[in-house]
Amino acid sequence: MTPADLVEIELIKRLKYRYMRCLDQKLWDEMVSCLAEDAVASYSAGKYEFAGRDAILAFFRAGMGSTDFLSSHRVHHPEIDLLGPDTARGTWALEDVVIDASRDFALRGAAFYEDDYVKRDGAWRILRTSYRRTFEEVWQRSGPGPQQLTASWWGTGGASQLPIPEHVAKLARSRPGS
Amino acid sequence: MTPADLVEIELIKRLKYRYMRCLDQKLWDEMVSCLAEDAVASYSAGKYEFAGRDAILAFFRAGMGSTDFLSSHRVHHPEIDLLGPDTARGTWALEDVVIDASRDFALRGAAFYEDDYVKRDGAWRILRTSYRRTFEEVWQRSGPGPQQLTASWWGTGGASQLPIPEHVAKLARSRPGS
Amino acid sequence: MTPADLVEIELIKRLKYRYMRCLDQKLWDEMVSCLAEDAVASYSAGKYEFAGRDAILAFFRAGMGSTDFLSSHRVHHPEIDLLGPDTARGTWALEDVVIDASRDFALRGAAFYEDDYVKRDGAWRILRTSYRRTFEEVWQRSGPGPQQLTASWWGTGGASQLPIPEHVAKLARSRPGS
Repeated sequence: MTPADLVEIELIKRLKYRYMRCLDQKLWDEMVSCLAEDAVASYSAGKYEFAGRDAILAFFRAGMGSTDFLSSHRVHHPEIDLLGPDTARGTWALEDVVIDASRDFALRGAAFYEDDYVKRDGAWRILRTSYRRTFEEVWQRSGPGPQQLTASWWGTGGASQLPIPEHVAKLARSRPGS
Repeated sequence: MTPADLVEIELIKRLKYRYMRCLDQKLWDEMVSCLAEDAVASYSAGKYEFAGRDAILAFFRAGMGSTDFLSSHRVHHPEIDLLGPDTARGTWALEDVVIDASRDFALRGAAFYEDDYVKRDGAWRILRTSYRRTFEEVWQRSGPGPQQLTASWWGTGGASQLPIPEHVAKLARSRPGS
Repeated sequence: MTPADLVEIELIKRLKYRYMRCLDQKLWDEMVSCLAEDAVASYSAGKYEFAGRDAILAFFRAGMGSTDFLSSHRVHHPEIDLLGPDTARGTWALEDVVIDASRDFALRGAAFYEDDYVKRDGAWRILRTSYRRTFEEVWQRSGPGPQQLTASWWGTGGASQLPIPEHVAKLARSRPGS
């Protein structure tokens, strides 16, 4: 690893940070610049799969577009490897919180990302992004427990067992059985 | 971005980390070195505004000085831009937790910081710091729900709707109407 | 601080990130490479103390080995100082979540790490790791409150007051009185 490598790694980190900021601030137009046109996404251990930047953005707008849907996605622990001058791979740890008071809904979870990055026209972009959950739990904000465990790395292979909302399901290419 | 830029960026990150550590460890004397003398702060989308390092520190001591007030402020996703040899700007994502068992009080929130930094006498310092909340919620530790949503990026412009404690209010220069 | 220093600091950060990932993914074999053979650990302000890599790993396997024990340990705010070509020191902020549905148990906490690192055979390893809690609280997942505060930086010196499970206690060299 050289100082010049560090510059590339910092640029990849910033790409990821911009992606996360656009997600939680619902900046879908700025989000476009984070993703390669042929990007693929596989969230929640393949429960939600999308091929192409347009499909990923349609998922964001449908699944997280409402301003009642308040989220905090935070990534940590970047382990970024440069594979060549314009390709890289990285793992990250995720913690996320979702609050949707309009549905009396709260969620918190933890996961690990595995991403591929590509440099095109001088800018790094996400080519593939995927995460598998360590755990996920949901609860009704108005009620006492029990909190419901809806994913675990070992128990569900890291995939959420929450039902997919219908307006999202029609966008997702779910794996059979998930 | 050059390797030399990365050194400056790392120094600015460390400044922010020291600021956060001093906050949660209540190290007010060490905190002095993090802030420019003419620093300004605008927390919770302007609900809490302070002009000058002394005013900011008075707020910390009054609002967070009690050892019953246990907090965890964590910043993530630094996007730091060097504007010149001794000025810089940055955004960060924040997650914070407050527990005050003596008041049966808990809070958690998420926000985005926008900061300005200045290098003086060879050391970076915070010249302006501000954050706007994505959400904030509070609850009584002894009771079941409902948790109360007290801020949202879209619903309240990112400002907390919690009443300002009287001993803090006399220090803050609140915006009209907040 | 030079660009060459930044490379060493990045390698130390990656070491810590690998350690945290191995912890939450229960990758005990890969964890071996993170620790010096003579590493010492002092968790929860000395409540859990272990001398030697083998003792630390035995603690991980006994205390966190079950796949019902789901954890998210996230570190933030690295302040890493190089002390020489092959020694370094660092502080980090920690946030951790534990969910064990089989025991109706949940925990969340915050702490600060102080670590020593050593470079041997060309690779950085953890020589000493320790943390002191800002707070820790536990609750029954099935029940309403009250949540129970089990550690505080000021109230308990940062040490957890949770009973040490018997199968772990026999591995730990606890400080008298803790």
